[in-house]
Amino acid sequence: MADAYTDLMAFSRETQALAAIAGRLEWDQETMMPRGAAAQRAEESAALEAVLHARRTDPRMADWIAAAETNSTDNVAKAQLRHIRRGFERASKVPAALASELARVTSAAQGVWAEARANDDFAAFAPTLERVIALRREEGAALAAGGDVYDALLSDYEPGTTGAELEAMFGALRPELRALRAAALEAASPAQVQGRFDPDAQMKLTLKLAEAFGYDMQRGRVDKAVHPFSSGSGLDVRITTRTSANDPFNCIYSTIHEVGHACYEQNIDDAYLLTPLGSGVSMGVHESQSRIYENQLGRSRAFTAWLFGEMRDAFGDFGIPDEDAFYATVNRVNNGFIRTESDELQYNLHVLLRFDLERALIAGDLTVRDLEAAWNDRFLADFGFAVDKPSNGVLQDVHWSVGLFGYFPTYSLGNVYAGCLHEALRRAVPDLDTQLGQGDTRTATRWLKDNVQCHGGLYEPRDLIERATGAAPTEGPLLAYLKDKFSRIYAL
Amino acid sequence: MADAYTDLMAFSRETQALAAIAGRLEWDQETMMPRGAAAQRAEESAALEAVLHARRTDPRMADWIAAAETNSTDNVAKAQLRHIRRGFERASKVPAALASELARVTSAAQGVWAEARANDDFAAFAPTLERVIALRREEGAALAAGGDVYDALLSDYEPGTTGAELEAMFGALRPELRALRAAALEAASPAQVQGRFDPDAQMKLTLKLAEAFGYDMQRGRVDKAVHPFSSGSGLDVRITTRTSANDPFNCIYSTIHEVGHACYEQNIDDAYLLTPLGSGVSMGVHESQSRIYENQLGRSRAFTAWLFGEMRDAFGDFGIPDEDAFYATVNRVNNGFIRTESDELQYNLHVLLRFDLERALIAGDLTVRDLEAAWNDRFLADFGFAVDKPSNGVLQDVHWSVGLFGYFPTYSLGNVYAGCLHEALRRAVPDLDTQLGQGDTRTATRWLKDNVQCHGGLYEPRDLIERATGAAPTEGPLLAYLKDKFSRIYAL
Repeated sequence: MADAYTDLMAFSRETQALAAIAGRLEWDQETMMPRGAAAQRAEESAALEAVLHARRTDPRMADWIAAAETNSTDNVAKAQLRHIRRGFERASKVPAALASELARVTSAAQGVWAEARANDDFAAFAPTLERVIALRREEGAALAAGGDVYDALLSDYEPGTTGAELEAMFGALRPELRALRAAALEAASPAQVQGRFDPDAQMKLTLKLAEAFGYDMQRGRVDKAVHPFSSGSGLDVRITTRTSANDPFNCIYSTIHEVGHACYEQNIDDAYLLTPLGSGVSMGVHESQSRIYENQLGRSRAFTAWLFGEMRDAFGDFGIPDEDAFYATVNRVNNGFIRTESDELQYNLHVLLRFDLERALIAGDLTVRDLEAAWNDRFLADFGFAVDKPSNGVLQDVHWSVGLFGYFPTYSLGNVYAGCLHEALRRAVPDLDTQLGQGDTRTATRWLKDNVQCHGGLYEPRDLIERATGAAPTEGPLLAYLKDKFSRIYAL
Repeated sequence: MADAYTDLMAFSRETQALAAIAGRLEWDQETMMPRGAAAQRAEESAALEAVLHARRTDPRMADWIAAAETNSTDNVAKAQLRHIRRGFERASKVPAALASELARVTSAAQGVWAEARANDDFAAFAPTLERVIALRREEGAALAAGGDVYDALLSDYEPGTTGAELEAMFGALRPELRALRAAALEAASPAQVQGRFDPDAQMKLTLKLAEAFGYDMQRGRVDKAVHPFSSGSGLDVRITTRTSANDPFNCIYSTIHEVGHACYEQNIDDAYLLTPLGSGVSMGVHESQSRIYENQLGRSRAFTAWLFGEMRDAFGDFGIPDEDAFYATVNRVNNGFIRTESDELQYNLHVLLRFDLERALIAGDLTVRDLEAAWNDRFLADFGFAVDKPSNGVLQDVHWSVGLFGYFPTYSLGNVYAGCLHEALRRAVPDLDTQLGQGDTRTATRWLKDNVQCHGGLYEPRDLIERATGAAPTEGPLLAYLKDKFSRIYAL
């Protein structure tokens, strides 16, 4: 019966390779594809998805899995089988007609959402969103098999976590973040950068930063795209970034963020290439890597001191007199409506809002008809000022239009994990700031590689964090870090 | 039984879409892929090839085809079925083990060839080439089923043509080309361009040329690559080019050539998208389009007059005084060893040499042991000077290493077709030179679109040319064109 495992892994490896191709097509679509190719690409992607679906539900899988599970004893094989079983069961539980209807509806819904956002017209999007939610609830019910529907959706992105656990964790964060935010906004505001920042010089600096954080350009590449993202696993992990002539931090911190995602994928043990263990284990752990690169390392007092020098070299004087002022500028807290533009302190308030609303939507406790008002009420409560238009509120994110329910909370969970990992990293590397002050992230990223990234999907997310830090993950370290950091910057 | 045709076309459409993805991966590999990704990409491509092979030999195909053939009467359906049957029979006749051995051996052989060429060491490549030829002969025998083995290989690239037909056609060309070549080389040689040509300015000019020839950038893009090529069909047809600071014509005419290939694919009737009729019908017809764009249009007296002005605008003075001198420079004939660098007049002599040698290799009349000497003897006979080293002779082309036997003659066949089409085009558009003199190719390319390109795979190659020109294709028009052109330029 060792043969069953061998056969299963060979079959799975081909499926992984085909899935990697699907990912590459998505990258191409966002970076290189001519605009007029969209209709043809849709057919190409659908054909590949059909092949993948057939493989993921191949009837031989059930026998292979059962036989292999009986005889596999080592941890790696057990972990591979855990992932394979999960994927097979997930694919098999959802009726094919529902899966294809979901693909069809969410594909069209993104366009409807984009137009509604452009016109600030939530009512134009509401019927489509209702349809998406109905289909996802149906899918969640099929997956949950009597259990909690939201938890079933959540487990696609963060296996081993429940909505109730997140509710408790986020509930502890929310009042503290609100208080900290209010205090910072009452204090004197740091200066902003001034002048024009040449996009080519930004890209040059950003490539230097990518290398400084350990991104391997021999197995990756950096392109511009409308939305920064990381794409791929193993030997081919590509990132995108963007430039804004007035705001160099957009490019710099988008890049460092995506480098965090990309390094996670690049640093997984080569032995797991094109196997279920060969990708990041969950969205939350993924986000912990992008966030710790971007924030705890990239926005630290020590690293920004080095970055200040680099930026002066690249752009000359940009109106910030010294390292302390620059550190405050980089971490400036200001009022704004948009999640993706928000600072490290307020970001989680945005996510918590979405988590509560989407959970209520999936539970049936909130209707789409009442969603816009619920969003605006909650925003006012947390941020202290009113949403002025839907594009600054309920219509700002693409996620729900494409059916991503259960995804938002992984952003904050990633921040929580990053807090835990950062605390452990500081313990393990007492002179970290000395290194970061020289733009040297090698010890820090090496620690993350050895303790988190190299394992790929070997451990479940919470186990992985606990192994790395010595304790079960809680919101405590993140909160302590944010309080300490922003109290110093704002002299609270 | 109409259902059989519908089912077959739906199945075929998905296969086409997957094949388009495979093409896109090849494009990515030559333009964008990080170097370190090669091993992973090889697995991805192999997985996709396995899916394609399974679909192309799917047992249901035989029944669908038989049932559909019984009931399909219209020309389009008949043509679709002709292509589908040909593809199915081709895929089914070759044993899977042989196909995968061929893929393995030719994949490795390319590296062996490249190293042998770098070291000018034919002996190092000979055993590998012997293996490739043995496998291709085996494959050809399986396909020929008792018929001519070379013809069976040829029909992959140029269905409906035989080696004997080409031999007769090329036999008529060869003495005339040799005589014309010798005469041109005895006459006074035109001047060459001088100075450095900024690569960015070359790319800017080349984009203008691509648009001038009707390439639709909304459904395509231009990148740099080591070797210029065109990739894709339908709504996504991309080309590559290259720049050389001393030789602007490399970039200009590579681009126009690839635009010819790309426009053929872009201009096929939309109704054939992702069907067997939705691609160029043969390599010969494809080459006829690239060559007529590049040579009969792009290197004409009228068009080069316009180009001369464009180049003066882009690069200033480059040592050529006027349009007449520029026309002669663009069409300069000079001694050289390399096919891809040769002019319009000598190019076919290169191809004819390869055709005769590869046909003898496949027939078993020539051994690899004797190949280098045979090449050198023939080269001396046609070109009047001796090959100095294998990289300038038998090792110069990649084709044979990757198993491309039967491909070379389609280059000259394409030139022959281009000669026929050009003659017909001149008849149809008497004031063509007036238009070309203004850089306006619209009438010419529209004629090619309506008479050749739009049909895709609807007609067999020779039928297509006969429909477009009113006569069966012969070498006569090409020869008349070359004699007229080079007699004028060289005052023969």
